[in-house]
Amino acid sequence: MRRANVGTGMRYIVGVMGPAKARKKDIDNARVLGELIARREWVVLTGGRDVGVMDAACQGAKQVPGSLTIGVLPSARERVSKYVDLAIITEMGNARNNVNVMSSNVVVVCGLMGAGTVSEVALALKAGKPVILVGATPAEEKFFKKLGGRLIAAVENPEEAIGLMMKQFEQQQPELVQGARSWGGV
Amino acid sequence: MRRANVGTGMRYIVGVMGPAKARKKDIDNARVLGELIARREWVVLTGGRDVGVMDAACQGAKQVPGSLTIGVLPSARERVSKYVDLAIITEMGNARNNVNVMSSNVVVVCGLMGAGTVSEVALALKAGKPVILVGATPAEEKFFKKLGGRLIAAVENPEEAIGLMMKQFEQQQPELVQGARSWGGV
Amino acid sequence: MRRANVGTGMRYIVGVMGPAKARKKDIDNARVLGELIARREWVVLTGGRDVGVMDAACQGAKQVPGSLTIGVLPSARERVSKYVDLAIITEMGNARNNVNVMSSNVVVVCGLMGAGTVSEVALALKAGKPVILVGATPAEEKFFKKLGGRLIAAVENPEEAIGLMMKQFEQQQPELVQGARSWGGV
Amino acid sequence: MRRANVGTGMRYIVGVMGPAKARKKDIDNARVLGELIARREWVVLTGGRDVGVMDAACQGAKQVPGSLTIGVLPSARERVSKYVDLAIITEMGNARNNVNVMSSNVVVVCGLMGAGTVSEVALALKAGKPVILVGATPAEEKFFKKLGGRLIAAVENPEEAIGLMMKQFEQQQPELVQGARSWGGV
Repeated sequence: MRRANVGTGMRYIVGVMGPAKARKKDIDNARVLGELIARREWVVLTGGRDVGVMDAACQGAKQVPGSLTIGVLPSARERVSKYVDLAIITEMGNARNNVNVMSSNVVVVCGLMGAGTVSEVALALKAGKPVILVGATPAEEKFFKKLGGRLIAAVENPEEAIGLMMKQFEQQQPELVQGARSWGGV
Repeated sequence: MRRANVGTGMRYIVGVMGPAKARKKDIDNARVLGELIARREWVVLTGGRDVGVMDAACQGAKQVPGSLTIGVLPSARERVSKYVDLAIITEMGNARNNVNVMSSNVVVVCGLMGAGTVSEVALALKAGKPVILVGATPAEEKFFKKLGGRLIAAVENPEEAIGLMMKQFEQQQPELVQGARSWGGV
Repeated sequence: MRRANVGTGMRYIVGVMGPAKARKKDIDNARVLGELIARREWVVLTGGRDVGVMDAACQGAKQVPGSLTIGVLPSARERVSKYVDLAIITEMGNARNNVNVMSSNVVVVCGLMGAGTVSEVALALKAGKPVILVGATPAEEKFFKKLGGRLIAAVENPEEAIGLMMKQFEQQQPELVQGARSWGGV
Repeated sequence: MRRANVGTGMRYIVGVMGPAKARKKDIDNARVLGELIARREWVVLTGGRDVGVMDAACQGAKQVPGSLTIGVLPSARERVSKYVDLAIITEMGNARNNVNVMSSNVVVVCGLMGAGTVSEVALALKAGKPVILVGATPAEEKFFKKLGGRLIAAVENPEEAIGLMMKQFEQQQPELVQGARSWGGV
């Protein structure tokens, strides 16, 4: 645990990743995830653009008063989701995917049809970050479990993902707690 | 203006930059700046480490209830200031200085003795961002005004810097408003 | 074709990617690939470290007089392969994987057991770069063909990979030729 | 010294930096520098675009048979100088300036009117790299000597810069030799 300010709880950062061109199911999952994450008072971090899973996760979070959403953008030329509170402009192109995963305590993935999303899962595993796949196909799950071992979990829906994160955060697993963020008074 | 959510104000991001090994005067300026920025409900963004101007600006901001501080770190190996609410781990080394300035609506500088800080001023000017120098020497002011023209302003103290920013934000100067961030309910 | 200097041939840049902890088969493939690439007077680009596929591909290339090898390193702290002629120090950590693929005309992959390598394939596809998998399993091939479509080719051995590249380069496919590099007198 | 292959000499990488919109004097200095660096069999590294000091330094080098020029580009959208042999596409925007200096054994600067160039000098100093200013004004020299101490040298012309580098390389100063590159048979 990085620290525990008096009178405040921990605020974890949950990265929600997925394709810009996403299926309806993944969009729906992302929106629910965003809302559930925000209800737990965790922060939602996405790629920040105004499309697909990025946009939906932030939209879901902003249904919740006091929620906070961070968008890590590839460049200043991109259109930012209107549901992003804080835009980090990396000017790194797709290399910003590494910033997304490095800045998240856990990465949750809604839809693996995009090359950008696959790069994020791979970079997360490379960095030793836990990854939760929501609604992955058996082939996708098998591929990534072979690659990431115990860092990979696969669940059916957002509720299960939240349950898994709560369990992980409560157990204070080192890889989750290490980078945990907290603040007071927001 | 990116957007104006009903019932919310704009929340600008103000980057406060300065040396890790800073003079007492610069530390003091940074702390006051951080507090004044937070009182205006703007967000403080720094390099995020637990030293020098970075640490002081965040510390100042966290005296204010509801404040929000972002630290953009060079790597996961660095110690994060305990006054940073949200740590963005870039894993880019000193190239993260470009993320700092790209993500700020305006950059305020307390002390120019460090090469890292000078690189941030230069990268800010390169990106067309306004820069306010607090307590610069005449030689420093002259050097940067020659480089940055009207993008550079020099003031004596934090209060003047805040006054200048208010004027800039109120006038809705394109370069300031373009990247402005707002959110509700935090 | 970017240009054609009088009296010189084109010199394409071929990225050879693969795990740091690689199987003997992948190491052998990388070494042969490096040599065959160099014989064609193309440049070998790798991740530059002194281990695994990176090291082997450069070693193979340096068996050939006049060969040229580029290593794109994550940081100045890494040990550079002694078979690297030019080390580019990105100081970007694993985000340097995006530099690797952006700077290559084509990416050839020996072994997909590593998360870093998988991120490189994904980033290459994201950037529209052709990728040749050498000795991939049917499951790996299927996974990436689903992701990358016609950008992905799968071959059994280095000779086939070279044959495919020659065909691609000769046909002057836009995505290959666009970034092609040439120079004279080296 | 990284290594000394039998039958080969060391090949240092010299970064030549300067404005895109440069004065005639700086362009001329850069062209002469490029040629003199190439005659010493050192490699010229620049920002790679087809303008200003970047272009001129590479042009000068390519007058010399066997020369080698590297261009480290901000993105794939930029036009590459036709005198660049190897283009490294960073897709990092101006943060690529840090790659330029990290990959150079020494940085030589022709003209300090540009914010990008000033950021490169500052990032070089931050990384502990020696910097040679060619034709700087007294105010510029003073500013950077205050910032960089013994890492900064100021000379009048390209010949002096080469003399200084030779002296530095011969003395095998740690900061210069550490990253030195060599290869055989090119």
